[in-house]
Amino acid sequence: MAKGNVAVIGYGVVGSGTVELFEKNLESINGKIGRECDIKYILDLRDFPDSPYADRMIKDFDTILNDPDIEVVAEVVGGKTFAYDYTKKLLSAGKSVVTSNKELVAAKGAELLKIARENNCNYLFEASVGGGIPIIRPLNKCLAGNDILQVCGILNGTTNFILTKMIREGMSFDDALALAQKNGYAEADPTADVEGIDAQRKICILGSLVYGRHIYPEWVHHSGITGITTDDVEYAENAGYSIKLIGSVNKIGDDKLGCMVCPRLVPKSNLLASVDDVYNAISVTGDGVGDVLFYGRGAGKLPTASAVVGDMIDCLKHRHTVLAMSWEDSDSNDFLVPYKQIETAMYVRVKIADAEQYKAKLSDMFGGLIFIERANRSSDELAFITPVIKEADIDEGLKKIAAAAEIASKIRVL
Amino acid sequence: MAKGNVAVIGYGVVGSGTVELFEKNLESINGKIGRECDIKYILDLRDFPDSPYADRMIKDFDTILNDPDIEVVAEVVGGKTFAYDYTKKLLSAGKSVVTSNKELVAAKGAELLKIARENNCNYLFEASVGGGIPIIRPLNKCLAGNDILQVCGILNGTTNFILTKMIREGMSFDDALALAQKNGYAEADPTADVEGIDAQRKICILGSLVYGRHIYPEWVHHSGITGITTDDVEYAENAGYSIKLIGSVNKIGDDKLGCMVCPRLVPKSNLLASVDDVYNAISVTGDGVGDVLFYGRGAGKLPTASAVVGDMIDCLKHRHTVLAMSWEDSDSNDFLVPYKQIETAMYVRVKIADAEQYKAKLSDMFGGLIFIERANRSSDELAFITPVIKEADIDEGLKKIAAAAEIASKIRVL
Repeated sequence: MAKGNVAVIGYGVVGSGTVELFEKNLESINGKIGRECDIKYILDLRDFPDSPYADRMIKDFDTILNDPDIEVVAEVVGGKTFAYDYTKKLLSAGKSVVTSNKELVAAKGAELLKIARENNCNYLFEASVGGGIPIIRPLNKCLAGNDILQVCGILNGTTNFILTKMIREGMSFDDALALAQKNGYAEADPTADVEGIDAQRKICILGSLVYGRHIYPEWVHHSGITGITTDDVEYAENAGYSIKLIGSVNKIGDDKLGCMVCPRLVPKSNLLASVDDVYNAISVTGDGVGDVLFYGRGAGKLPTASAVVGDMIDCLKHRHTVLAMSWEDSDSNDFLVPYKQIETAMYVRVKIADAEQYKAKLSDMFGGLIFIERANRSSDELAFITPVIKEADIDEGLKKIAAAAEIASKIRVL
Repeated sequence: MAKGNVAVIGYGVVGSGTVELFEKNLESINGKIGRECDIKYILDLRDFPDSPYADRMIKDFDTILNDPDIEVVAEVVGGKTFAYDYTKKLLSAGKSVVTSNKELVAAKGAELLKIARENNCNYLFEASVGGGIPIIRPLNKCLAGNDILQVCGILNGTTNFILTKMIREGMSFDDALALAQKNGYAEADPTADVEGIDAQRKICILGSLVYGRHIYPEWVHHSGITGITTDDVEYAENAGYSIKLIGSVNKIGDDKLGCMVCPRLVPKSNLLASVDDVYNAISVTGDGVGDVLFYGRGAGKLPTASAVVGDMIDCLKHRHTVLAMSWEDSDSNDFLVPYKQIETAMYVRVKIADAEQYKAKLSDMFGGLIFIERANRSSDELAFITPVIKEADIDEGLKKIAAAAEIASKIRVL
């Protein structure tokens, strides 16, 4: 049988991990594929003269594209420019592409899956969500018999590390972010993580996969964790919740979806509340299976490489078989319910002079509230959780006390 | 394209759930498969005249075997007699079989996978371990790039329910078992569950899949939970552990495996300790991915059906493609380390007159012990945890106090 040749585009963190893991377990991988396979090219514009793989390093993409021996390419270069161009060309040439590039899958997934299908090859992206955690294939295959009611989870390890430090050690957001940067968990510019943009891409991929139509990131409300304070953490703890950054997509009625990324109060009884540090976890609810949860390291060199290599093996094992289910492109977001129209319970912290006297008034306004206490709560502060109502109605209610009150925090409850 | 016809053998709990879920989600399932598919036959020896599917009920297996339109059969009849015979005949005829029958997979998996491979069809069994929890395909596909170091988990919901009641509510084993039976979680004869036989089959399937060679249940040490007392639960809690029935398989050195099922003290910091009631969870450690965990309902009508239907869809979508990796038969168990030769820490509770005076002696014997206290510990009782040493050496040590002591409990630590 012909030797199976693969190429890796991008020799950064994930790329070097992919090469390392593939080569380390090469013998067992070949056994699983059932024939001899190996990495033939590694494409990177930089030089790595001391690498043990220096003899496979190339700088010209066309070498890969024009080599008929290359069956599978791992695109781990990231971004939407080169990666998009390369992926289109490779798939059009009938070469399968596997990737960890969530930005590209979230932006161009429908188009790239279509090209793969038309050219009888695969575009797989297990590594794009949850790092090494198996989630794409389980959703796509194992749970295919279910009507999926909801997918929600902790999709970003950086923010979960920061929140864990705030919750467990009472650190401020700024100190926790600085520690995350020191540990290499957060980038110098942490915007994509802390503002929920990374998680937004990931929930779009999961939602598109599950519901069969492309959900573009720009259609999805996101808010990050920069506004979370240790005050909110303390109130949440006292009420039996942990604050987590949650991406969620769920059915609303028969044919609408809700999709957003935001911090949420997660009840301690939910396993998601116990997911700490850089770990990710994704909870899936189906009409058959009930709730299942997937947990592990959501990022990092070798965990992400684990998913990339798993996809490479699948493509090598099933050449010329279209393995992925796919989704259709969407020309409008009319299947998404605007987030202000979605029902939710809301934790609210207000600054208001002579706070006690407002309790009854606020309670009446919302049809009952759960007030939360904390030690030494100042006389000008109230914290409470509303019933489950439309978010727009919560805003409407709070407007009525706007003259007297400052809304210090609003966090949705899971 | 030809209509895809399937048959279901066995209309018990899982069988009726399989039919219910498949028919409920038929439209979306057909969309995923890409052509029209449906259940053509349901085989059961009993009569179901009031069933909405009465017109598809048959009693003759050969109708299924000889119908060239049948592509996939769900074997959910259980056991090793009819199921074995039917499965062999169907696979030999090139019809894919999907099953929840862990007993059959554990006993005959290697043989049946070989027949499937030779006949260009599939034998899939996602439902055989963890009910609806995706675990077989993730291990087989998503984590295929890893050297898997360990798989361990809570594989039996009945025993986990019983232990949860003992831990959370201080119930005795007998009372908790009676409640499990009342709730329909335990059978009238609970032996296979409480003695660890069910979990033994499941860990054999996972171990065979991961390590590529058949691990027969009779080679695997199992002990159940009938000997666990509320005394042990209390000591374990005081030391920061929960007692769980754990099935585990792990690499020992380069080419040996350890595999067993037994109650274990699980540290509270391990997520497995938080898995309560009838839920299952499986933790996998790979050299690339690190630790990942899969959690959900490990049994029940619709959760198990979810996995069966997922496998049916995969077979219908990929007719004539061998999807499963498989494993080789084993003619000897020499790759398994005998359990007494495996290193472990052990919780031990002894009854011994004038217990305090033995503390120093026991500590010296084992090179240090962690003694555990409880309120009102009687003067003739000691509970402690040994260092990690060969189990045979623990036994040897305890023999030295055998004349004076009764070994009331011995539970391995995870």
